Amino acid sequence: MILNGIGASNGFAIGKVYKYEPVKVQVEKKQVDNIQDEITKLDNAIDISIKELEAIRIKAQEDIDEKSAEIFNAHIQILNDPEFIGNIKKNVKSDSINADYAIKEIADMFINMFEAMDNEYMKERAADIKDVSQRLLYHVLGINNNGATPIKEEVIVIANDLTPSDTAQFDKRYIKGFVTNVGGRTSHAAIMARTLEIPTVVGTKTALLDIKESDIIMVDGFDGKVHINPSNEQIEEAKAKIKMYKKKQAIWAQLKNTSTVTMDNHYVELVGNIGSPEDVEGVNNNGGEGIGLYRTEFLYMGRKNLPTEEEQFEAYKVVLNNMGDKPVVVRTLDIGGDKELPYMEMDKEMNPFLGNRAIRLCLSKKDIFKTQLRALLRASVYGNLRIMFPMIATMDEFHEAKDMLMESKCELIKEGSRVSDHIEIGIMIEIPAAAILADQFAKEVDFFSIGTNDLIQYTFAADRMNEKVSYLYQPFNPSLLRLIKMVINAAHKEGKWVGMCGEMAGEQLAIPILIGLGLDEFSMSATSILQARHIISKLNYNDMVKLASEVLQMTRDKDVYNRICGVLKEDV
Amino acid sequence: MILNGIGASNGFAIGKVYKYEPVKVQVEKKQVDNIQDEITKLDNAIDISIKELEAIRIKAQEDIDEKSAEIFNAHIQILNDPEFIGNIKKNVKSDSINADYAIKEIADMFINMFEAMDNEYMKERAADIKDVSQRLLYHVLGINNNGATPIKEEVIVIANDLTPSDTAQFDKRYIKGFVTNVGGRTSHAAIMARTLEIPTVVGTKTALLDIKESDIIMVDGFDGKVHINPSNEQIEEAKAKIKMYKKKQAIWAQLKNTSTVTMDNHYVELVGNIGSPEDVEGVNNNGGEGIGLYRTEFLYMGRKNLPTEEEQFEAYKVVLNNMGDKPVVVRTLDIGGDKELPYMEMDKEMNPFLGNRAIRLCLSKKDIFKTQLRALLRASVYGNLRIMFPMIATMDEFHEAKDMLMESKCELIKEGSRVSDHIEIGIMIEIPAAAILADQFAKEVDFFSIGTNDLIQYTFAADRMNEKVSYLYQPFNPSLLRLIKMVINAAHKEGKWVGMCGEMAGEQLAIPILIGLGLDEFSMSATSILQARHIISKLNYNDMVKLASEVLQMTRDKDVYNRICGVLKEDV
Repeated sequence: MILNGIGASNGFAIGKVYKYEPVKVQVEKKQVDNIQDEITKLDNAIDISIKELEAIRIKAQEDIDEKSAEIFNAHIQILNDPEFIGNIKKNVKSDSINADYAIKEIADMFINMFEAMDNEYMKERAADIKDVSQRLLYHVLGINNNGATPIKEEVIVIANDLTPSDTAQFDKRYIKGFVTNVGGRTSHAAIMARTLEIPTVVGTKTALLDIKESDIIMVDGFDGKVHINPSNEQIEEAKAKIKMYKKKQAIWAQLKNTSTVTMDNHYVELVGNIGSPEDVEGVNNNGGEGIGLYRTEFLYMGRKNLPTEEEQFEAYKVVLNNMGDKPVVVRTLDIGGDKELPYMEMDKEMNPFLGNRAIRLCLSKKDIFKTQLRALLRASVYGNLRIMFPMIATMDEFHEAKDMLMESKCELIKEGSRVSDHIEIGIMIEIPAAAILADQFAKEVDFFSIGTNDLIQYTFAADRMNEKVSYLYQPFNPSLLRLIKMVINAAHKEGKWVGMCGEMAGEQLAIPILIGLGLDEFSMSATSILQARHIISKLNYNDMVKLASEVLQMTRDKDVYNRICGVLKEDV
Repeated sequence: MILNGIGASNGFAIGKVYKYEPVKVQVEKKQVDNIQDEITKLDNAIDISIKELEAIRIKAQEDIDEKSAEIFNAHIQILNDPEFIGNIKKNVKSDSINADYAIKEIADMFINMFEAMDNEYMKERAADIKDVSQRLLYHVLGINNNGATPIKEEVIVIANDLTPSDTAQFDKRYIKGFVTNVGGRTSHAAIMARTLEIPTVVGTKTALLDIKESDIIMVDGFDGKVHINPSNEQIEEAKAKIKMYKKKQAIWAQLKNTSTVTMDNHYVELVGNIGSPEDVEGVNNNGGEGIGLYRTEFLYMGRKNLPTEEEQFEAYKVVLNNMGDKPVVVRTLDIGGDKELPYMEMDKEMNPFLGNRAIRLCLSKKDIFKTQLRALLRASVYGNLRIMFPMIATMDEFHEAKDMLMESKCELIKEGSRVSDHIEIGIMIEIPAAAILADQFAKEVDFFSIGTNDLIQYTFAADRMNEKVSYLYQPFNPSLLRLIKMVINAAHKEGKWVGMCGEMAGEQLAIPILIGLGLDEFSMSATSILQARHIISKLNYNDMVKLASEVLQMTRDKDVYNRICGVLKEDV
């Protein structure tokens, strides 16, 4: 039997089953006589929970990484949050009810609110509250939930869902794989599994039901499949796959310190996308030639107030320092749309993707923007900084943003700060209006970086998060490819370079066309860099130029897709 | 003193003030002993209200037009609606409360729900419920609200807001103008005022407060201004304006039966946008050479179920019949986005403008689409029908829609129905992807019609309903003009024609450029046609071609705008 789910962490694993089913807590509303007793019980539970979380945080820091450890800081913050704890206590007092019921009541309120926001970031906030309120409930009720400790042999863990606490608490030596009923690729737990390189399949819906304790299962984290009691044939097939994958990895590893060139010596640059200073290591380890997109919004998330100029300066400095003289493209704050900040009041918009986001928001909240620009300029002397403005639609917007940058530079110099004189200034091309006017923009900017996720979304007028219209996410549609070509031609005519930092840049099948269209820089997740370098090394540039001009005359995405499928050699 | 508002109906009026302030009703929750008494009171109030509304409906039909009369049918429907009345009765019974409180409770619930939808159509539904529940309350409470009857001399009516009932009930002979504190250009009352040609300014915020009964005021419906006790100078100025306007109207009237040509004999077609069969008269009266956009969604609105094939057939037939051999471009159902249908379940979308709307929705609800296509095909023998699909982004979508049309045609012929063999089939160009691939589409369609409202919205990735980003509604941005040029060139190369049915087509300042870009057909509201014909008659086509190619090389919308401002002669 084979279960289908979502591959959340690459790799294969075969082994025994360990079903992880945390104690289910039954909470009922009860009238209590002694309110103070409930408050004391709650306060004690908070104390124990915080101590536990501090221990888990240290463990995560040692066993996993800094980013995973940060999650437990967020949990501790929730337990210190007057909104959260204050409301629980208020309900206990005003309704004379049991603390456990009040916890559940308030937690559910926040969880439902955050989940309803239909936004990945807020969904993770909901998951955090779920996780931490469960812990609190255990301690209020005096339940011992050491479900994870008894593992003393190698197993594959099957669970309904995995919380970050679960994932961090398991003894990594014994965990060969994870399989869950629910959850997606972007949950904290999935990210931790990838960091730990533990093969993981999430969202199987029925794993807990279909898999018995006595089964042997095989987890295929590449394709999101779980084989229950696999046949020898299936195991052999998997072993062959692993062998092939390892072979490929070995080939790719040899490319770590080489430059990226086609068979006929056309050179391009392969760089990485990062979200925080800790991600730099991955880019360097995978042979990235720089950072093509540093998403600064993570600096602003998971906290209660805006990051100061000093905090930002430190983060940018670390990244620039660690990259040496390799280029680092920093995108200024791209908040709004689906990315909200709890501490920044933003109006509810009817169409947030067509709303006040990114550069629009920054130009309307100039103090916030200025702080970032100053921090960037001050950090510029520590490396090879390039600054990029997101969501530029008109030349007026670019002028306004650039004027503010220049103004900040003058201020800093007057204040006696050092600022680099060699900062390239570019814009994201992710709005059709800017792509169509690229020839004019090219005269004024130092570079373009094409953001395909948004560019596709606007070019086809389709929210790609919306399942009903996700068929219109068509990176291979000739219409989109023509826009890209327009941008590249316009830039080259003015001697400027063009990068791409959307998902398309790392997509195996898109690489041949993008090479043919003349793209200069490919920015992708660190783990895709070596494979991309390998693919490019097998391509002939002149052939790809012909291929590109051929597909630009096609009418449908499928025609283009089918045409390229034949181009990629089997061994990439 | 001058108040600024929104001009909702053109024209000037000077006169005495009549403050219309309907009796304010105080409703308090009361426990009642005899529930049956309350129910009887309610039933009687419903009966009286329906009788009144029937009388108003007939009055509106005679004094105003069929469309205005329809509003009161909608009010009567509300009073017959089991959702609405049933819930009021339920609350009276279950809570033993007074009928008037139950009315207010239920009405407020619906009003808040509809208003929260942030959608013009639903807001009008909220206004209808407000209007009708007010009437019901008066009768339940035995209040006489004949506030409108005593007017026996010419006045300008000042009110907080005007409901359709208010507007219909006034004696038109004595009403020279309307001024309100709140409301917008698209409210039922504003539309009625335009039909009645009563100068109207809405949304002044403070008119009721600032204007005294003893004041003389002057209403400027063109510029949305209200002069309180105007000086002789201001009155003279207004008189001059009126004289000029009348002179212009006289000049325009002479163009009613002429064709539309530039000074150097370049011919274009001027046609009208309509929403219902009753609008045809206006287009004919204003010298329209056809219908460039028949918005069929109004057929689906303000009712409780889908219109049948027969109902649709009748509507299309009337329009085609009344237009004779002039072309009628019918746009297939463009629902979704901001246009919802209460009886059709549509998922809440995070970005409805980037969601499942128009052709996307039709292709996912094929039975609804098929009904419309069959009705259109059957009506095709009664005139010169052109069918247009909205929101086409890809060739696959066009193929799917056209296949369904051809399939329906075959079916009808097999069933023995007559279908015209000369139906042109075109698409709206309102998504950047389609504009960029226009050369390919031009090979397969008979015509394009550019929908500028949406095209601008997507090209600049900005919801134009969202105040924060409304600065990005830039019809004069070279980027948008280049897209339009791309579409026109592509069509002409294949011998196809291009129209425009967005607001831009009727905009005075845009006309010179659109002529220069080679647009073949301009579709606008009927009342703009004659002025547009006049403007075009004063232009030199060859000069406009040069102007257009000049502005395509500019970088900012303001540059283009300033360049065109000089082109239009003062007398247009």
